[in-house]
Amino acid sequence: MEDIILLSHGNGGEATRKLIEEEILKYLGNEILEELLDSALIDIKGKVAFTTDSFVVSPIFFKGGDIGKLSIYGTINDLSVMGAKPLYISVGFILEEGLTLKDFRKILESMRSAIEECNVKVVTGDTKVVEKGKGDKIYINTTGIGIIEDGISWHGRKIEEGDIVIINGEIGEHGLSIMMERLGIKTEEVKSDLAPLHNLTLPLLKISSGIKFMRDPTRGGVAGVLNEIAQKYNVEIDIDEEKIPVKPWVKNASEILGIDPLYSANEGKVIIVADKKEEKKIMEFLRNHPLGQKAQVIGEINGMGKRVYLKTKMGTKRIIDPLKKDLLPRIC
Amino acid sequence: MEDIILLSHGNGGEATRKLIEEEILKYLGNEILEELLDSALIDIKGKVAFTTDSFVVSPIFFKGGDIGKLSIYGTINDLSVMGAKPLYISVGFILEEGLTLKDFRKILESMRSAIEECNVKVVTGDTKVVEKGKGDKIYINTTGIGIIEDGISWHGRKIEEGDIVIINGEIGEHGLSIMMERLGIKTEEVKSDLAPLHNLTLPLLKISSGIKFMRDPTRGGVAGVLNEIAQKYNVEIDIDEEKIPVKPWVKNASEILGIDPLYSANEGKVIIVADKKEEKKIMEFLRNHPLGQKAQVIGEINGMGKRVYLKTKMGTKRIIDPLKKDLLPRIC
Repeated sequence: MEDIILLSHGNGGEATRKLIEEEILKYLGNEILEELLDSALIDIKGKVAFTTDSFVVSPIFFKGGDIGKLSIYGTINDLSVMGAKPLYISVGFILEEGLTLKDFRKILESMRSAIEECNVKVVTGDTKVVEKGKGDKIYINTTGIGIIEDGISWHGRKIEEGDIVIINGEIGEHGLSIMMERLGIKTEEVKSDLAPLHNLTLPLLKISSGIKFMRDPTRGGVAGVLNEIAQKYNVEIDIDEEKIPVKPWVKNASEILGIDPLYSANEGKVIIVADKKEEKKIMEFLRNHPLGQKAQVIGEINGMGKRVYLKTKMGTKRIIDPLKKDLLPRIC
Repeated sequence: MEDIILLSHGNGGEATRKLIEEEILKYLGNEILEELLDSALIDIKGKVAFTTDSFVVSPIFFKGGDIGKLSIYGTINDLSVMGAKPLYISVGFILEEGLTLKDFRKILESMRSAIEECNVKVVTGDTKVVEKGKGDKIYINTTGIGIIEDGISWHGRKIEEGDIVIINGEIGEHGLSIMMERLGIKTEEVKSDLAPLHNLTLPLLKISSGIKFMRDPTRGGVAGVLNEIAQKYNVEIDIDEEKIPVKPWVKNASEILGIDPLYSANEGKVIIVADKKEEKKIMEFLRNHPLGQKAQVIGEINGMGKRVYLKTKMGTKRIIDPLKKDLLPRIC
């Protein structure tokens, strides 16, 4: 096989078959995918969560992960924050002519390991090739199906005054690490927080009935998710700058780049709104979890208002708007 | 709103929200999609078909359709040929900076009309923006979920000697029409055969228990699908050139371009392998269907062999290999 992707790999003939059978199936194969049918046939019963995400991150390899791992964890996380157990994933590749097979295999291997870790199956897929200059090495769409298990029931509309807002750890790492990579600044500590959240969110929903809302603050960051909650459920949210966990390198990078960590993407974080009565139980669970050791209650719900306020370290209070100005694109 | 897509439409902030709420939801919205949750919540019971496809066709508008309509029908067809009733679709857009909102709206309107026609719902979506020169106006991934209704049961492994091979109409139109478009040759008759197949395949499976295999011959064409069948089920397939329905313009275009219609993509065709005893019933159904008026029995299964043979009009017999040489890419 040639050592780069050619247009003929997308023509639906022999080269496509070889790419699928000799490369993709080698890494992602299982008894369902290997049938190579027009649709995968799967058995499902109950309430299903269904989510899609395209990944266009640049660079495709970065400290803490790559586009392959991101494409699996990203969809795992969109299912996990809905309280769904991830089961099946579809993968759609858009490959740019000239992508090296070496890089493609690295990405496939990274996906394989993420799939194994999350105990999901890639059951259906598609591969297209576009001419050089009409893509950027590789774009990946993943679409996921998960099952919402019986007994798990929660809904954002129950959010009310006095509820607490929790984050499971330090913020802003994914977005700022991608930006630092693009600038060629690589220090030891600069690293994406990329991680799958299913082993955190699903057990949490089982130990506490006080969870009212969960969402992973990716593009748009923590500020984006908090504004969504405030607007959707017509509540005011007050957060406390002192409580927001931020790594020192993120603080420095955010000053260099002029980007507030509150607006920077995360890929292993979840914002949780919960009943204050459950605070102790939830925080104890989180702090004992590998992905929650730096968990913090960062704020609370304060009546109606559709606004997010930040109490600064200096004691002043300012509005946190959703992102208006441009951040660098293609973070995820 | 600006009249072209900007990078800020992909930043996860205000511009993204506006694009989703004021453009995408306006066309594709429904009560599930409008929740804008991380995953759509849907109720499903039974055997599910799950399929994904990315669409990168160039040009994005062509005679007989556009990338929007193609992205819906393509996934509808992948579900339909598996005997599944299409229900839910996810849509992932990768927009290139500079795409005009006018074109995006035309595509959205075309998707809206296709969705309505096929009675499916877009329940979850994602929108990314890439820099000018890193895409080609718009790429669309659609992933579909369908239900295989009780009583429908068929499996390619039952294919045996004496079975007939049927096509529901004239072949090669989609691929050749896209190629003619690229050359700027636009005559009245040059047109894609793009059409949704669910209203053909699902009733057909109900009226006949003799259907053994169905697949839509898209990339790789009729020759590709026949070779897949021959290889997968270890059978020899003999087809008869005289029986293969081809429009005159397709014959001419194929001569100009040097591309055999057998290898050209179709987007409204299905290859059916069936028990010969059911021939009359199936052909009667097809010929009375708007998408089957030109249906033909084009060949038969002849024992073991993994090969496809064509009996030519001159009476000779030649092997039809799967596509080896390059066709123009980005047909679908």
